[in-house]
Amino acid sequence: MTVDLDPPRHLVAEAVARAIAEDLGPLGDLTAALIPAETHGVADFVARRAGVLAGTACAIEAFAQLDASVDVEWHVSDGAVLDAGTVIGTVGGPLRSVLTGERTALNFLCHLSGVATATRAFVDALDAKTRVLETRKTLPGLRALEKAAVRAGGGVNHRGSLSDMVLVKDNHLGELGIADAVRRARELWPGRGVEVECERAEQVATAVEAGADLVMLDNMTPDQIAGCVRLVRAGNRPETLIEVSGGLTVENVAAVAGTGADLISTSAITQSAPALDIGLDLRIN
Amino acid sequence: MTVDLDPPRHLVAEAVARAIAEDLGPLGDLTAALIPAETHGVADFVARRAGVLAGTACAIEAFAQLDASVDVEWHVSDGAVLDAGTVIGTVGGPLRSVLTGERTALNFLCHLSGVATATRAFVDALDAKTRVLETRKTLPGLRALEKAAVRAGGGVNHRGSLSDMVLVKDNHLGELGIADAVRRARELWPGRGVEVECERAEQVATAVEAGADLVMLDNMTPDQIAGCVRLVRAGNRPETLIEVSGGLTVENVAAVAGTGADLISTSAITQSAPALDIGLDLRIN
Amino acid sequence: MTVDLDPPRHLVAEAVARAIAEDLGPLGDLTAALIPAETHGVADFVARRAGVLAGTACAIEAFAQLDASVDVEWHVSDGAVLDAGTVIGTVGGPLRSVLTGERTALNFLCHLSGVATATRAFVDALDAKTRVLETRKTLPGLRALEKAAVRAGGGVNHRGSLSDMVLVKDNHLGELGIADAVRRARELWPGRGVEVECERAEQVATAVEAGADLVMLDNMTPDQIAGCVRLVRAGNRPETLIEVSGGLTVENVAAVAGTGADLISTSAITQSAPALDIGLDLRIN
Amino acid sequence: MTVDLDPPRHLVAEAVARAIAEDLGPLGDLTAALIPAETHGVADFVARRAGVLAGTACAIEAFAQLDASVDVEWHVSDGAVLDAGTVIGTVGGPLRSVLTGERTALNFLCHLSGVATATRAFVDALDAKTRVLETRKTLPGLRALEKAAVRAGGGVNHRGSLSDMVLVKDNHLGELGIADAVRRARELWPGRGVEVECERAEQVATAVEAGADLVMLDNMTPDQIAGCVRLVRAGNRPETLIEVSGGLTVENVAAVAGTGADLISTSAITQSAPALDIGLDLRIN
Amino acid sequence: MTVDLDPPRHLVAEAVARAIAEDLGPLGDLTAALIPAETHGVADFVARRAGVLAGTACAIEAFAQLDASVDVEWHVSDGAVLDAGTVIGTVGGPLRSVLTGERTALNFLCHLSGVATATRAFVDALDAKTRVLETRKTLPGLRALEKAAVRAGGGVNHRGSLSDMVLVKDNHLGELGIADAVRRARELWPGRGVEVECERAEQVATAVEAGADLVMLDNMTPDQIAGCVRLVRAGNRPETLIEVSGGLTVENVAAVAGTGADLISTSAITQSAPALDIGLDLRIN
Amino acid sequence: MTVDLDPPRHLVAEAVARAIAEDLGPLGDLTAALIPAETHGVADFVARRAGVLAGTACAIEAFAQLDASVDVEWHVSDGAVLDAGTVIGTVGGPLRSVLTGERTALNFLCHLSGVATATRAFVDALDAKTRVLETRKTLPGLRALEKAAVRAGGGVNHRGSLSDMVLVKDNHLGELGIADAVRRARELWPGRGVEVECERAEQVATAVEAGADLVMLDNMTPDQIAGCVRLVRAGNRPETLIEVSGGLTVENVAAVAGTGADLISTSAITQSAPALDIGLDLRIN
Repeated sequence: MTVDLDPPRHLVAEAVARAIAEDLGPLGDLTAALIPAETHGVADFVARRAGVLAGTACAIEAFAQLDASVDVEWHVSDGAVLDAGTVIGTVGGPLRSVLTGERTALNFLCHLSGVATATRAFVDALDAKTRVLETRKTLPGLRALEKAAVRAGGGVNHRGSLSDMVLVKDNHLGELGIADAVRRARELWPGRGVEVECERAEQVATAVEAGADLVMLDNMTPDQIAGCVRLVRAGNRPETLIEVSGGLTVENVAAVAGTGADLISTSAITQSAPALDIGLDLRIN
Repeated sequence: MTVDLDPPRHLVAEAVARAIAEDLGPLGDLTAALIPAETHGVADFVARRAGVLAGTACAIEAFAQLDASVDVEWHVSDGAVLDAGTVIGTVGGPLRSVLTGERTALNFLCHLSGVATATRAFVDALDAKTRVLETRKTLPGLRALEKAAVRAGGGVNHRGSLSDMVLVKDNHLGELGIADAVRRARELWPGRGVEVECERAEQVATAVEAGADLVMLDNMTPDQIAGCVRLVRAGNRPETLIEVSGGLTVENVAAVAGTGADLISTSAITQSAPALDIGLDLRIN
Repeated sequence: MTVDLDPPRHLVAEAVARAIAEDLGPLGDLTAALIPAETHGVADFVARRAGVLAGTACAIEAFAQLDASVDVEWHVSDGAVLDAGTVIGTVGGPLRSVLTGERTALNFLCHLSGVATATRAFVDALDAKTRVLETRKTLPGLRALEKAAVRAGGGVNHRGSLSDMVLVKDNHLGELGIADAVRRARELWPGRGVEVECERAEQVATAVEAGADLVMLDNMTPDQIAGCVRLVRAGNRPETLIEVSGGLTVENVAAVAGTGADLISTSAITQSAPALDIGLDLRIN
Repeated sequence: MTVDLDPPRHLVAEAVARAIAEDLGPLGDLTAALIPAETHGVADFVARRAGVLAGTACAIEAFAQLDASVDVEWHVSDGAVLDAGTVIGTVGGPLRSVLTGERTALNFLCHLSGVATATRAFVDALDAKTRVLETRKTLPGLRALEKAAVRAGGGVNHRGSLSDMVLVKDNHLGELGIADAVRRARELWPGRGVEVECERAEQVATAVEAGADLVMLDNMTPDQIAGCVRLVRAGNRPETLIEVSGGLTVENVAAVAGTGADLISTSAITQSAPALDIGLDLRIN
Repeated sequence: MTVDLDPPRHLVAEAVARAIAEDLGPLGDLTAALIPAETHGVADFVARRAGVLAGTACAIEAFAQLDASVDVEWHVSDGAVLDAGTVIGTVGGPLRSVLTGERTALNFLCHLSGVATATRAFVDALDAKTRVLETRKTLPGLRALEKAAVRAGGGVNHRGSLSDMVLVKDNHLGELGIADAVRRARELWPGRGVEVECERAEQVATAVEAGADLVMLDNMTPDQIAGCVRLVRAGNRPETLIEVSGGLTVENVAAVAGTGADLISTSAITQSAPALDIGLDLRIN
Repeated sequence: MTVDLDPPRHLVAEAVARAIAEDLGPLGDLTAALIPAETHGVADFVARRAGVLAGTACAIEAFAQLDASVDVEWHVSDGAVLDAGTVIGTVGGPLRSVLTGERTALNFLCHLSGVATATRAFVDALDAKTRVLETRKTLPGLRALEKAAVRAGGGVNHRGSLSDMVLVKDNHLGELGIADAVRRARELWPGRGVEVECERAEQVATAVEAGADLVMLDNMTPDQIAGCVRLVRAGNRPETLIEVSGGLTVENVAAVAGTGADLISTSAITQSAPALDIGLDLRIN
């Protein structure tokens, strides 16, 4: 089940405004000035590779901000599975505006569809029991959009920012034990999710006992993971969520599938997701 | 020869401010509140993989904006070649601030070093005669920083925005021939670089004849490229720059090396550059 | 136990910048021009009424943005209990700047100390078992600062925004039952706090059974509240947090104290908190 | 006579944009995601207490920014006197958007109607001869909106910022006498209103003689005020405006009514105005 | 007597930030990259023509924002009378930064000194009795800085914005007479300056009688102006300020000098002030 | 041939938003409040002097931002030659909004038409062979709009920012010779225009030989210019563009016309262009 919530509209508008400003420069598109102002054009967004679509809200916004007389029609929606050759949408209007807006629209579409595609690859490598999360390793300024793209790819979202949830790592502990850290987090921030990063099974046991909502198993082998899952499920807080993280790839993640973990998280779907190749094909009259 | 020009300071400041805002959220770092305010920490930025460093200005700025009492010392500079294990820099100050700023600083370092590393891979696959350019396929809001990272990786920069240079593609031509397009571009925008995208040798000949500063050979085979280079060098404007673009990878770019082209351009070094793995290791007292 | 986390620095800076811009206008302080530029002044922030201090970060920032040569020294910190007459801090510098910055600094101090003072009044009317939360009924543009002031007053913070936690109210349910809503929220947003607003004990039972992290008892009498607390504590998820909300005042909240509820929430401490009267007394040479 | 001038449109837009950004967070409304996207809803803004309406421009803007497909119809206008139960307006559209925007719209309406209601209470406690002014003790970032709400409540506005008028207080004088201060203010800022804060009748006489446009009687008793009014009206500049300020409440202000003062000013109507309770009632099909 | 109030600091910072952004572009100063990073330079700001200095705060800010290691020392202050050849200030630091910041600093200095110089020319053409005001015909985005420059040139400032004062022109009147307009303005906006634009002596009489603070004599001949001055001074509100406006030049304004008008206003000192020629001379070692 | 490219839309929107904010202040137009809200008005933009029109996009945007119910119709377009009395456009809507927006719209129109008019005067003083360029001596914050106005006046644009082209001046050279500077610029920034400022014919020869795209002849006499033109045209890179700069006026530029220079550049058309007098005439019913 995918969440269909779009990214907040103002975040789309701000990201697109920045992208247009950086692409147009002070004079606008010098090359477009070669085209007669009255020439009209129609062009199709076409997937050049198979993947999952995301970022249509940004592409729409790009043309809306650039020239309100450009029409954009979308044939499929965020989350759609694309084949190489799928016509995703069509844009029509003054040719100058179509060509000037092309790259801004595509830069969002290609990156965010790349995120969605990478997410889907992890989702498909797992069974339905284990969900895919992004991390905070996102591209600066694009986090909210990347999170929406993760949802489009069938993933779910981890915390939105440092002020949403508590995630206790080794570095936070100092002289504090895990149990004290969880207790103190509960006192300070009642009602928030509390997660503990664990490197050993004993830590998992302690964290669950202390009442953590999630435990993150960091850089464990599938066997270690399976052991921790059994440990949690057999305890008195079996609903505690188990997140697996660290060095996961589409190839090695399948080994996690059978362990019964609830969640895996990976920066491969945001920070290192290759762009999905989408192009804009101008129709020739 | 690498350009040592840093990205403009205000662009660094703005990008970092956005990243901090999106990572901190309204309350700040809930987890850092577990740490006593007076605890001090020192940590090292360490490369986990070999690569080329970029983005130090952003990492410095991240801590400066977050907490002016944090000190950051840098042991190597942008453009440095890193081995797995190289200690890049050291950060010291209130432990809360060190941990809160860690991810923002790393997100810039990892992405921009990823860009520099990918650029360097292309540079190393070519000979010194052929330079590496980025394209406009950059991540929205990060273009200026990515361009600086390309320079750190040994590449050079293509136009900064649509208002810098003229780049005539097939879609701009309509009923206008290449020669007329170049002539008109010269009239409209005297002194600007004028480039023409060419798919066939005849177009190259026409473009050079018309006085283009650069010709872009799009999706040609190495043989076709070599033919075009010979054509240009044998003509009466042999200094015309020849840029090769389209589908280049670190693997196939070597075949371009021998052709004598001046420049290659690829989106693989920006839009699809995987993050370089850099971490922050807290020193334990 | 109070959280000592300051509001994020950039949010302080932005709020103060807006306040200075709106108070200075295009010309600056016309009246300050009557004072010779070289006149120096020292003044004390003095509480005119008893209360709890908050907002010192904003007051410091106001003078820092206005004139870096003004020194501000603070004698007590956010969270301090003030008597009428307590000298809170001292500001010294060019008299023009001291007087021009006075109102901006005080507007933050008085409002945020008003929030802290109102929070403390609720805290003091309850026993240590029951904590005080703000709601989303905050003053537009000031939420993060008000949340920090709530912490200064001894309260704890509810969700920072709509994207932190799930809070299911009657209006969200439609044809969905409470149990289905909780289950679906868990699927969509794993690891997030899930709260259900309940108007009747049966709803509480259902919500707890479905695995809610918190139940909000809306507009119930103390007896009803006590009944719900017993219900929850006697069940198999006794750690579920119980929040009491709706129409609470410093007077009537004491009746909640004995019920065993974990949390009360009220808009009286943000949207309707009267300013704490703090003034700036210029020392006469 | 009330001024019907709306707050400047761009200030409404900016304040609303900030409020939406702080309420939505990076992901938007997690809870709204439980509602099917196609569900439509209609809801009424209803006054829960008697008061005076203000802030409708902000409420309209909130929904316009959030989702242009939401319709808002307003049954009464800013300045309208509301009874408990008055239906103020109706909003209809996608239920998700209606619920997501509810709190932002209400936070403006409740605070600004609170300001208008408090203003009206002072207006009603006085006779028509004496007008009600706000002070600079406003909530940071909301001043222009609060000033419009003061007008909606039947008050009039004091200076918009420090650069509008000259208001000489004791702290500005130093070695300068009142007469010299007024003369110098006239020279520096011709055509601006010049006001002098006075604590004694002699100061009033001096200020009027020197040509002040307004005198502010600070913390005087009704008898002292009446004496000053007589003094001014009997002099040769009887049209000088007399403003009474300091410690006024709805209760004690009536004693000013008979004194003949032109204006009273109070921070109680801005900084300390309690929110007017307005709710949004979803219609059940 | 000149007002020595600087323009508000945040307005200087914002205007300079915009100027730097538009001058640097995404890559920064391509040409400065030719200079070795370690080369140091010292340069002098020198007036190439006689005039009056303004804008030093902007020039300082330009270098401060660009590179904090650049030192700027100012030998004279805003308002100083410059001869051709006067050395105004000295800047030293990394040569790259000195040259990159040169134009931004000079663009402010030259325009604002042009405003001050033009203002001074009007001031000098009048006698001390008649003061010089700017109008609202300012360059968009630069009004506050231009107003400070007018003060530097010995002028005084008219209203800062439409929300400071009331200025009734023919177009505002409709069916309302001047007397009713003034009365209504007094009711709506107590304490504000009220000015009436008059084209005939009868209007002046009416406006003064109605209690206007200022009358603006629009496009009258010196004789007509002198007549209006006599009319006002002989009446019972002789202190009413008389402003002369419309088509004034440095040449024809002298004829106004003898009329006894209090103020003249002209757009020639803002919108049409030619830049004062100031250059930056690099010292050669 | 004039370039018909409008300034980028977002730059128009931002400049207008700043202008409205600075003109309206916190309360809006106090004087407009005298006009009944329902009064409608129609007014014509009329040229009071002959000139060339520019800035219509800004005028349209001003009313659109202020009040969407105002209609603006434009009878001529940017670049049109206006006689004194030409009716440029018509605006109709609520009279309050028409009058409130008048000055903002006119400030853009008058300044930008002033730029276009000054540009046209230079264009007309030259022959078609020699084109007119602006310099970087533009008014801070208005550069992009001024560049569009230069195009409207028949000029062409020099570099948009420091990151577009390389322009080597004496100060950049240090120990580097011109030939080395050009070579290094080519290496660092391939494809960019490279220009060299020259004060003597030998420098011109060196620069052309080194492959500069443009040479700027700084402060040369017409004879010297003609000599340099002959030198370049007789060489082996005769297409090198020759720009003449320094101390040009409409009067003395004619002497350049016969020299065969390609371009002249002058700050007189931006920084020192007097406003074109355009007014708004309200139609009387």
